[in-house]
Amino acid sequence: MSEAVSPLATPFPPLPAIAGVTPRIARAGYKDWGRCDLTYVELAEGTAVAGVFTRNVCCSSEVDLGRQNIVQGKARALVVNAGNSNAFTGYRGREAVEAIMDQIATHLGCERDQVFVSSTGVIGVPLPKDKAHAGIEAALLAPPCSWEEAAHTIGTTDTFAKGTMATAVVGDKTVTLAAIIKGSGMIAPDMATMLGYVFTDAAVSPAFLQQCLSAANMRTFSCITVDSDTSTSDTVLAFATGKAGNAPIASFDDPGADAFAAALEQVCRDLAHLVVKDGEGAQKFIAITVSGAVSDESARKVGLSIGNSPLVKTAIAGEDANWGRVVMAVGKAGEPADRDRLSIGFGGTWAAREGQPLADYDEAPVAAHLKGREVSIEVDLGMGDGRATVWTCDLTHGYISINADYRS
Amino acid sequence: MSEAVSPLATPFPPLPAIAGVTPRIARAGYKDWGRCDLTYVELAEGTAVAGVFTRNVCCSSEVDLGRQNIVQGKARALVVNAGNSNAFTGYRGREAVEAIMDQIATHLGCERDQVFVSSTGVIGVPLPKDKAHAGIEAALLAPPCSWEEAAHTIGTTDTFAKGTMATAVVGDKTVTLAAIIKGSGMIAPDMATMLGYVFTDAAVSPAFLQQCLSAANMRTFSCITVDSDTSTSDTVLAFATGKAGNAPIASFDDPGADAFAAALEQVCRDLAHLVVKDGEGAQKFIAITVSGAVSDESARKVGLSIGNSPLVKTAIAGEDANWGRVVMAVGKAGEPADRDRLSIGFGGTWAAREGQPLADYDEAPVAAHLKGREVSIEVDLGMGDGRATVWTCDLTHGYISINADYRS
Repeated sequence: MSEAVSPLATPFPPLPAIAGVTPRIARAGYKDWGRCDLTYVELAEGTAVAGVFTRNVCCSSEVDLGRQNIVQGKARALVVNAGNSNAFTGYRGREAVEAIMDQIATHLGCERDQVFVSSTGVIGVPLPKDKAHAGIEAALLAPPCSWEEAAHTIGTTDTFAKGTMATAVVGDKTVTLAAIIKGSGMIAPDMATMLGYVFTDAAVSPAFLQQCLSAANMRTFSCITVDSDTSTSDTVLAFATGKAGNAPIASFDDPGADAFAAALEQVCRDLAHLVVKDGEGAQKFIAITVSGAVSDESARKVGLSIGNSPLVKTAIAGEDANWGRVVMAVGKAGEPADRDRLSIGFGGTWAAREGQPLADYDEAPVAAHLKGREVSIEVDLGMGDGRATVWTCDLTHGYISINADYRS
Repeated sequence: MSEAVSPLATPFPPLPAIAGVTPRIARAGYKDWGRCDLTYVELAEGTAVAGVFTRNVCCSSEVDLGRQNIVQGKARALVVNAGNSNAFTGYRGREAVEAIMDQIATHLGCERDQVFVSSTGVIGVPLPKDKAHAGIEAALLAPPCSWEEAAHTIGTTDTFAKGTMATAVVGDKTVTLAAIIKGSGMIAPDMATMLGYVFTDAAVSPAFLQQCLSAANMRTFSCITVDSDTSTSDTVLAFATGKAGNAPIASFDDPGADAFAAALEQVCRDLAHLVVKDGEGAQKFIAITVSGAVSDESARKVGLSIGNSPLVKTAIAGEDANWGRVVMAVGKAGEPADRDRLSIGFGGTWAAREGQPLADYDEAPVAAHLKGREVSIEVDLGMGDGRATVWTCDLTHGYISINADYRS
């Protein structure tokens, strides 16, 4: 973890143990960090798994294999390596991942494709097989650890550990979700990455778990941006052990399915917000709500165009209600919009309506709102019913310092 | 003009007068600058015109009307207002532009649609009609000015005046092109803009002029990026007075057509490079050449994905040959690419070939190259014959200072 903690950091919350999930940590020594860098999570037999992965076509072998393995829907273990992303390392990188899968499958007596591996850190250096092997040996002997320790261990340039939880009533049972994530940019220095893991004791079919995770992803992880750069290793996995003893959920017709889906989405949203709050150099958390678009997807694209605009992000850093830059970002999104129907506000106060600055625009409440840590931007396109919220952070000198003022 | 001149600035070159083109400047007083801010260029009767305009859907009335007027192919005058972009000002903004067109059409006794207007500066404030009217009156009485004076007058946040020239042999005549441009970001503070103007004495049909300008635009202005933000007012116009007396060029079958098109493209490339060299906070000029793509257009998109990546731009600012960030930017472009065929180099030295770091990679020449003012990045996708070069600048603390450390 980096020394200077984000001003948007929140304390790690108390997270419950999840029946059927046992996290352990060890030190593989991928970098000369004086801390653990390998996380091993053992999952009870019969655990369902679902996942979403980066769309970057130059993805790592971990992502390739994860995408392949997810199809059969079952998981027995997760390994997360921090300090080496193993990306862009060709066949040697793939061999290193396969060796980890073999080692754990042999230990657990399970199929190799039930072992999921993620790696984050420097790229272009094949993950050292000997360090990984010894690290896993150590992890298998280690005592179970807390979620906070696991969250610290998967981190790289993160300035604080990130986790969240939720519960849902499913039939006559209460199921619990605990989740951790790492990431402080779509990419952080040396190709760090967003890796998120959700663990639940709910009994859920793999297909339904995937359906819920994919839907939640579109409204949470796919709605955040720090710097518009997309990692080659981004991964979010959800594991459901079934130990809560609820009647298994296989579709939205089953009791508690809506509650479970809502809890999963809440957990994903919490994790996504935590990543933005650790955005490189972030001083402000920005929520951009776009309404009146021709569709929800169109609203999301307009929101991301605003959230990715360096000029919007620097304006917020400067506490400047520069709605002209928001107009620009709406216009360049390539989505249906009409200059003369566009309205823009900050913190609930309209600055411009239907294509023109408001005659009686009162800048005082807006100026006060922009001085806070949490800023909202409202955009009404006036075209239809499509709606989305996108979250990002401001663009500051801190981002440049982190990403330019060093040598790899 | 701003005080601190870009370290990439070049002296304004000697530019020739163009027969049939008379520039004049005046002070309309759109801002409290102690300098001229209105440029008026009178064009001989029969001048052909072509133009390319921003694709931002929230464009200004100037762009709307310019796009409309360009269709008839003839121009008699150009007016450029600096200090007020007149964007997002609704019907009042449109009326201000129409008033300028009327005033000049009456003066010259020409059709209103032969008067082209551009504006750049703050947005959301309708261009004051009275100031524009008085400024034009003053310009009509002013003596002709130099190209350098005109280039200064169209500028806003630019740190140096930008111009270039070229000649071409057309049949038994030599035609001359002189051109000026302003811009220091796709958008600069207060919604500044890229505005470029090419003037030539060549006799060229409007349709052929448009064909050449559109083609040149795709390989020049559409291949530069400073911050990925697209102005609502971007405009490039080409005017051809015909005073050189060459046999008019109407197609590539006419003598000298190739030479003219090449000269026009060279002028556009020079102007595009000058804008990048005045990029906000720019310390380095970066040329990104992508080869081996499935098409030229695909290569351009991959190049822009690299050129727009904050992580690539900060790496170059930090003189760090971080090819992993280039891999990431290739992968997120959404264009056909194959991790295992990808090669990446800096300044002509390969760092990675076919998906893997080079075993004998010599970082010394790369490190030396990155210390210079001009940096090149080479990417070979290994997929096909598509090729493009994209130009950008690095992302530095200067960009943040210009865009965040002030209030509008």
